[in-house]
Amino acid sequence: MASYLIGIDGGGTSCRAAVAASDGRILGRGKAGAANILTDPETALQHIADAARAAFQDAGLDPAGIAEARAILGVAGHNVGDAVHYVKRRLPFAAAEIESDGLIALQGALGDKDGAVAILGTGTIYIAREGDKVRYIGGWGFTVGDHGSGARIGHALLQESLLAFDGIHESSAVTQSVLAEFNNDPRDLVDFARLAKPGEFGRYAPRVFDCAGRGDPVALRLLKAAATTVDEALDVVVARGSRTICLLGGLAALYRPWLAERHQPLFVEAEADALTGAVALAAVRFGSRPEVVA
Amino acid sequence: MASYLIGIDGGGTSCRAAVAASDGRILGRGKAGAANILTDPETALQHIADAARAAFQDAGLDPAGIAEARAILGVAGHNVGDAVHYVKRRLPFAAAEIESDGLIALQGALGDKDGAVAILGTGTIYIAREGDKVRYIGGWGFTVGDHGSGARIGHALLQESLLAFDGIHESSAVTQSVLAEFNNDPRDLVDFARLAKPGEFGRYAPRVFDCAGRGDPVALRLLKAAATTVDEALDVVVARGSRTICLLGGLAALYRPWLAERHQPLFVEAEADALTGAVALAAVRFGSRPEVVA
Repeated sequence: MASYLIGIDGGGTSCRAAVAASDGRILGRGKAGAANILTDPETALQHIADAARAAFQDAGLDPAGIAEARAILGVAGHNVGDAVHYVKRRLPFAAAEIESDGLIALQGALGDKDGAVAILGTGTIYIAREGDKVRYIGGWGFTVGDHGSGARIGHALLQESLLAFDGIHESSAVTQSVLAEFNNDPRDLVDFARLAKPGEFGRYAPRVFDCAGRGDPVALRLLKAAATTVDEALDVVVARGSRTICLLGGLAALYRPWLAERHQPLFVEAEADALTGAVALAAVRFGSRPEVVA
Repeated sequence: MASYLIGIDGGGTSCRAAVAASDGRILGRGKAGAANILTDPETALQHIADAARAAFQDAGLDPAGIAEARAILGVAGHNVGDAVHYVKRRLPFAAAEIESDGLIALQGALGDKDGAVAILGTGTIYIAREGDKVRYIGGWGFTVGDHGSGARIGHALLQESLLAFDGIHESSAVTQSVLAEFNNDPRDLVDFARLAKPGEFGRYAPRVFDCAGRGDPVALRLLKAAATTVDEALDVVVARGSRTICLLGGLAALYRPWLAERHQPLFVEAEADALTGAVALAAVRFGSRPEVVA
């Protein structure tokens, strides 16, 4: 039986898998439910196996080959040691390495080239690679990090809406729309915010981009402040040597025109997605593909 | 048996009571444990009764008189309707009204005069009174409000320390001291912050005042930003007519020299504490003291 490679892109909403030949050529893809190894490792293990099986079936291969396969998994929260060890020991593969979801995204976006990715979604994180050296900047989560993220932008909009209610900051169409949603009762807004998860704050972020584009002064101020935090992080990425930056994540396209002129020439489009990146890393680690050192 | 008045200042760390004659003259004081009617109403009821009994004993009065007494309670979270109704029905007094801790603080600080209090502690809130009209500005809690509070200042210091770690913002003595406390490992800081309550963030606030006073550039920037949020709220208080402002709360004395020149002439010292304010309100509502309308 030939030994195949598997790439896994495990996320909080779904888990995707690809099976590839030993040179990294993708033969089939599959998908299953959420794979959050931190909050629910048993379900994550089940869905990783389900996605791999679906990929083997998509390729017309016998799923028995899964037990002989070698895999790279990209997962959120990969740096939480205990969860990684627990999951790694229980995976149905012959060998596996667990990497960050950011690293497989970088590999997919840049291929083997040096450069950085700025992942701008519900959270934010910056990952730069030079040769075999990978550096992470930012991240750290919603509570004390993830500046410029959708969650932080949405949170800032709710804050501004309360400040507008109190007459401390100016009111505008965007703050009025938020207050109206909460029956113009700040207590309802506070009740929502007290229990809201980052993703729930993040759902207000597209409205800030939209209203800023139409000239709303409060949305403009919030968006410029958020874009400044991204530009400041990109300055560090550039100072450390990256000359190519790929913007990824749900807010990437919305953000691009708001980022500083000095960064615009550095932006490139992603070559491929994170799942392709996972397979490419698997081909180098476990397959027949030589490691490329720039 | 003469009917007495009771004032209660119920807080998250302790509950204080005073018993007074019907003209508001305080006869005795007592203290008991925390009285948070929102998070633990049964314990709060117990400690309110304990504090009242201690006050009667301090005055040399028979505690049986508590059942005949009329009380004003100032409590945090008074505007959460269900908890107030639950506690109010179970109080051991002949009659009682529950008010905000801020209102009794204002009554204590300003007596019957018009004006405002700015309560600058773990949280922040502004309360202005003109005649019998009382307005609240700000507050709203740590998640989306309480700008300039100890909790927000401490939170901002932790954030800045991570930004300094990543090289995104400048490092200084104050950020280095924070990182050192967390073994120079940002993950330890993030673990702390993820579970920290407002009071735990707030414990970092005095350090910001201290370091700013010694010229630390990061502490100065954080403190100036915090003071701006207080000045902006005070501008609203002034615009709505207050010409006398009393700064209260654990950060009041630290803040005063950092607030804008335009507000300095308005600041006055508190006449008395919140417990005295509760008794004064009780004397107007239930006693022989006439209501003063400015």
